[in-house]
Parts: sequence; C-alpha cells; structure tokens
Amino acid sequence: MVASFVSRLRHKLTGGHAPVCVGLDPRLDALPSRLLPAAAPAARIAAFYGEVVPAIAPYVPVVKPNIAFFERYGAAGFAAYEGVCQAARSAGLLVIGDIKRGDIGPTASAYADVHLDLADAVTLHPLMGKDSVDPFLQRCLVTGGAVFVLVRTSNSSATEFQGLHTRDGEELSDVIAAHVHQWGEGLGEAHDYGPVGAVVGATYPQEMARLRGRMPRALILVPGVGAQGGTVRDALSAFDAHGVGGIVNQSRGIAQCFAPDDPQWLDRVVTAAKSFSTEMHNALRAQGTIK
Amino acid sequence: MVASFVSRLRHKLTGGHAPVCVGLDPRLDALPSRLLPAAAPAARIAAFYGEVVPAIAPYVPVVKPNIAFFERYGAAGFAAYEGVCQAARSAGLLVIGDIKRGDIGPTASAYADVHLDLADAVTLHPLMGKDSVDPFLQRCLVTGGAVFVLVRTSNSSATEFQGLHTRDGEELSDVIAAHVHQWGEGLGEAHDYGPVGAVVGATYPQEMARLRGRMPRALILVPGVGAQGGTVRDALSAFDAHGVGGIVNQSRGIAQCFAPDDPQWLDRVVTAAKSFSTEMHNALRAQGTIK
Repeated sequence: MVASFVSRLRHKLTGGHAPVCVGLDPRLDALPSRLLPAAAPAARIAAFYGEVVPAIAPYVPVVKPNIAFFERYGAAGFAAYEGVCQAARSAGLLVIGDIKRGDIGPTASAYADVHLDLADAVTLHPLMGKDSVDPFLQRCLVTGGAVFVLVRTSNSSATEFQGLHTRDGEELSDVIAAHVHQWGEGLGEAHDYGPVGAVVGATYPQEMARLRGRMPRALILVPGVGAQGGTVRDALSAFDAHGVGGIVNQSRGIAQCFAPDDPQWLDRVVTAAKSFSTEMHNALRAQGTIK
Repeated sequence: MVASFVSRLRHKLTGGHAPVCVGLDPRLDALPSRLLPAAAPAARIAAFYGEVVPAIAPYVPVVKPNIAFFERYGAAGFAAYEGVCQAARSAGLLVIGDIKRGDIGPTASAYADVHLDLADAVTLHPLMGKDSVDPFLQRCLVTGGAVFVLVRTSNSSATEFQGLHTRDGEELSDVIAAHVHQWGEGLGEAHDYGPVGAVVGATYPQEMARLRGRMPRALILVPGVGAQGGTVRDALSAFDAHGVGGIVNQSRGIAQCFAPDDPQWLDRVVTAAKSFSTEMHNALRAQGTIK
C-alpha cells in the first residue's frame, strides 16, 4: 500500500524538519541575472530550480510550485513545471502543486490524473462542490496524494465572498470548512489527519483558530507569511500539541530573497530556508506546542 | 483601438450566426479510431481538431476548448491547446478558453498574460474576489478580451455553496452576480454588454432568469445543454429582445456525436453543429425574442 501524504509528512517532521513549505513562483525579473541570461524563459526557470531544489531539500520538507508562473510561458513553461516537480520528488521533497483547479466530472478527473501524477498534493477551488473534489479523492486513493481546498485565502478581497454571512450566522469559509471535514470522513487513518486538507491564510489568524476547530482532521496549508504580511505566529493555531497539522508556506522571502546580480544568491536562498525552519520551530516551542 | 469581444460577437450574430458555442473536450476514447491510431495522445487530439475546427467554422461563431482535457497530456497537451486556439482564431472563430483559473495579484497576471493571448476570452473562478479578476480585466483592455465568471455552474453539487442562503436572503450566486455587474461598471460601451460576463448553467433555468436581471450588462455563457440535461429553451432568459446576451454551449453532442469507427464522422460533426445553430435560432424565434 502506498504511503499517504500525511504519513510521509509526519516522517519528515519526526526526522527533525519544521512544518514549512517553500513556494516556487518563478518571476523572470527576480532570477539570478548570470543564469543563462540569453536563454528562453522556461529554460532559465528550469536552470534556476535545477540549483535551488537540491540546495534546499536538506532543510525543508515541502515545496509548492505555483503553476501559473510556469504556464505563463506556454507548453515550454508547463514542461518546466513537470521538471521541477520531478526534481523535487527525486530530492526527497514533498510537492504541493499550487494549481487551484476546480471543474467537474470527467474534467476534474482529467486534471486529477495529470496533477496527482506530477505532485504529491494539489490545491483546489471548492465553488462547484463535491463533484469537483471527488475525482481527486478517487485518485488520491491510488497515489497516496492529498488535496488542499481553498477555505480562506490570504488576499484582502478574500472576504468579498469567503467572509459572507450565511442565514445560519456562519461565514462561507465556515461552510466550506464543514464540507472539507465531511469530504474527508472515512478516508485516511482514523484519529489522524486525512487526505482532505485546507488552505487558510496567515493573514486571517482569528479565522484560522475557528476554522481549525471545524475541520480537526484537515492538514492546513498556510500561505500569506512574509510579503503578504502574515507571520509564523499567526499560523500557530493550525497546529496540534505535537506540532503537526499545519504547513506554513513562504515564497518570495526564500526563493526570491536575493538581488538578481548577487553572485552568492544560492547561499542566500539556503540561509533563508534554514532561518524560516528555525523561526517555525522556535514559534512552536515558544507557544509550548512542541517541546 | 482593438475591437471588443462583444462587438466581434455581435458582428457574427448580425452576419446570421446563432449565439452558440461548441465545446472542445477531447477524450481519447471518443476520437475517430482511424485518425493516427498509433500516435501519442496530444498528436491525435491536434489531428482531430485540425479537421473539426475548419469544418465547423462556417456554421458556429464560437468554440470553447476546455484546457483540462489537453493539460491531461502534460506539456505536449498544452501545446495542442495552443494549436487549437490558434487554428480556431485563424478560421475566424471566437475562442473562449475554458480554464476556470482563480488566483491573485501577480499570479493572476501570469495567467491573464498567457491565456488572454491564446484565447479571446476565458472562464474564471470568483472565490478569491476582485483581486483575482482585476488582472484579467487590465489585460482585456489591451487585447479586447472578456472574462466569464462562474456564477451558477451546471453540475448538481453546484448548489452546495452557490445555492447557500446569505443573511440578506439571497443565494451566493446572486451575490457573485452583483459583483460581476459591479466589476463591469465603466468598462466597455455604455448601454451594451461589457467585458465581464458570467457562466450560468442551463440546468438552473429559474436562477438564469433571476441572475440575468442582476447583471444586465454581462454576456452569459450557458453550459449544461445536451449530455447534462439542459435544453436551449432553458437558456432563453439569458437573451435580450434582439437575441443577444447569451452564448449557449454544447460539447459532447457535437464534437463527440459519432461512433469512433464511423468513416463519416466529420460530416456528422458538421451536421450536428448546423442543427444546434438551427435549434437555437428556432428557439429564439419561437419565444419571439428575434424575428
């Protein structure tokens, strides 16, 4: 039987990793200027992660490439995304494909087939309901994968719809969280996190605490730390008493922490990845979440 | 100044086209069995649309490739999607890229840059709010493109969230529709449809009538006719007194209307496209919508 996403993550954490994730969002103007400056965008991106991925793999357990920044360069960019996923998994990293897809029936199956083959887990839009999540869960049974459903995104206009109050006095995010919990019922090991996780931004710490309570078996992927203004402290309520339950992401602050013309850029990326891990460990310890 | 999506559509309708759209959702087991049977999936898909697209272009104004079925085959599939979009536009068709993307800020800009370059319009997930739509609207100003925001999707579990009642007694779909209307304000020609359209499934005819009222300037893309159980009649309330305002899609019923071993498959596709147009024209006439 294939190991589940949560068991593979748990193994990483037991081995000393902090529950963090490095976002891979390639922007051409933030790539090292000496790295194939004359090459096509997709080739420059592939070369960049060819150096970054093995360098950070000893220090973080998970990476999250956002496919938009690859797809931006068409078929060649898509091939670069495939390459980054493969390289990261070969280096022992867990990969969350930040694809934010959401479609139904055979369409969702098509997405699930390719994206849960490329990555260990993916992010999903819930707006179309269970029809849009089920095909991914079917595929997770085969691959040991997981999904992270958008429950409260980190951006400021998230509240336009996600913060809407329902007739029952809840916010839409609460209703989505209740469905996330329901969709995960009977899947995975009882008394452990299951394959249906959630995305909740660090920029909404109050909601984080409340939403954690509504979906006790969901791993929570936490974006919004760093450039977007959230801190690792804002993410702490995602975690249980063993320091498990959340995966805190940082993107620009790590893989884009250098000036493009800095010859020491890779050292800076590694240093930033290590500091982020340490910061996360310290925050969990300070809270008394882990010893 | 570049012509807007709505003006290009209107030109097609004035020229005698019905307001219909053919969905391009390639499934390997539904392709003609004699067409490159030994080739790779993406090559078979490209060959299929290489014949379908020019054959239907005289009879319908719009096609809607769903990228999931292309992306399913990785970078090669993505290249096939690019090729189908280019071929369709060369044949004079308007292309709605059914991408259902939804992400924020620079991420949304990355999607907008590539997808509004490939297609004339795209479908979008609204859950993340204005942040996720704005970068596309900025791009539309340059390309003359349009977006179709998911307001009420055609699937049965659409109601799980979209049908949720808010504190103000509306459904989530109504709130999204109100935002669609607001996002379109000041864009496009006054007193005409604008670049911010909506997706409303034919499978929800009552909601269609109500939602049309809430977003009078939105073109409505109507999926769900045919295999999903909706009819062209269910879509009629999307249209104004001149037979404009809606674009009714059919996918499987046209581009997959044949048995794979039928040597006359292309004739059947063309016949199905013509019938769909005639059916739509007749329904609009019967309703007295157009003369």
